[in-house]
Amino acid sequence: MNNQQSTITNGQGTLSSRLPSHKECREIWQSTDAVCFDVDSTVITDEGLDQLAAFCGKDQEVKKLTMEAMQGGLEFQTALRRRLNIITPSLETIQNFTRSNPPRLTKDVDLLVEALQARDVDVYLVSGGFCSLIAPVAKMLNIPLENIFANRLKFFFDGKYGGFDEAQRTSRSGGKAEVVSYLKKKEGYSRLVMIGDGITDMEACPPADAFIGFGGNVVRETVKKSATWFVYDFKTLIKELESDD
Amino acid sequence: MNNQQSTITNGQGTLSSRLPSHKECREIWQSTDAVCFDVDSTVITDEGLDQLAAFCGKDQEVKKLTMEAMQGGLEFQTALRRRLNIITPSLETIQNFTRSNPPRLTKDVDLLVEALQARDVDVYLVSGGFCSLIAPVAKMLNIPLENIFANRLKFFFDGKYGGFDEAQRTSRSGGKAEVVSYLKKKEGYSRLVMIGDGITDMEACPPADAFIGFGGNVVRETVKKSATWFVYDFKTLIKELESDD
Ligand SMILES: [Mg+2]
Ligand SMILES: [Mg+2]
Repeated sequence: MNNQQSTITNGQGTLSSRLPSHKECREIWQSTDAVCFDVDSTVITDEGLDQLAAFCGKDQEVKKLTMEAMQGGLEFQTALRRRLNIITPSLETIQNFTRSNPPRLTKDVDLLVEALQARDVDVYLVSGGFCSLIAPVAKMLNIPLENIFANRLKFFFDGKYGGFDEAQRTSRSGGKAEVVSYLKKKEGYSRLVMIGDGITDMEACPPADAFIGFGGNVVRETVKKSATWFVYDFKTLIKELESDD
Repeated sequence: MNNQQSTITNGQGTLSSRLPSHKECREIWQSTDAVCFDVDSTVITDEGLDQLAAFCGKDQEVKKLTMEAMQGGLEFQTALRRRLNIITPSLETIQNFTRSNPPRLTKDVDLLVEALQARDVDVYLVSGGFCSLIAPVAKMLNIPLENIFANRLKFFFDGKYGGFDEAQRTSRSGGKAEVVSYLKKKEGYSRLVMIGDGITDMEACPPADAFIGFGGNVVRETVKKSATWFVYDFKTLIKELESDD
């Protein structure tokens, strides 16, 4: 089977993505050196920032902006800035939120991460969300905190919201692809697989060697249509790993 | 006596400053609506950022940059960013620093602030330093925290240094003048006096209606030469207030 050419659109216009074929994807999966998981609606069942917005009573306003951003109307960093300017989460808010909203892991993601790590595959969380919300997820999955690539909230001395680190790769359009490139170069991985539900996850392949679309929580039609491998549960991916043993 | 024309130099080049005469200064002082005090080497005997740098064992590196900045080689915000990038103070560092380094007030500044407030004169602290270091000074002097105009450090969720608010007026060259303009407009002061040891303090007049150079801790030669009223202690200013009663 040949590589499949898919043309997808993001906030910056039209991107061409050359994804490996279904067969190639499965082969790469079975012998990969590293896996980068998207977090929101992939590793966890929810969208962290939407949950935080709801916690702050700002869900309606923020949902509207999230929709606009997803429909490609806004550059990622601009959309993020605007949503956060609505939520303006203080340090205390984040602490209270994470205490009262422990992450809800997607079914079998813990088993999948365990299976990967047992095979010496490095596991990363790569997200447009925030480290402070993702750290509890990493802890639950025994993923080292330094394997989180995500955005970083800032606070003033009194704990008030002080923006976010706009220099982080993940705060920009194309940021996940940049993280993948960085990891491949730094760690010398010859095979790296990206897994996620969203267009920005698919756009990270290439430089990722394979992309697996995940539809266990939400199904993004563009991703489902363009991805050469699309799964609805992590059990499927665990079985594929084992079939190689 | 006519206004005295003085030409001074800052990081951005040559500025012309028209200061009121000595006699005019004293008259304005006796009937002013508001006083803006510089903090470092004026209200307190030390330079807060240099002290913090020493606390972090980075005083030599930082002193060098401070000198360069004062000699006009660096734009204020750039100099501030570079010094902070050397110190990289965490939230915990600031907490430990302020606990173990309570501000050392300049002699009689407490009596002066008290005398001004007793006459219903509004008192402000306007500084290129940081709110988190100045708040303890304000508390000691019964100055409301909202009367502090200074820079704001930022921290990440884990407490690590996360930069500073580069949108604050006081983080830029000419920022003190901007604060004075803002206050005059917002509060409708017809007379506002700026007091400080530094060139940036003198540059805030105008828009300040008078400038009093302060040499009780350090004497900046340019300020001493250009200021139409230069004092070495706050007692002098208290007496001038009383002479009007
Ligand atoms: Mg997602
Ligand atoms: Mg000073």
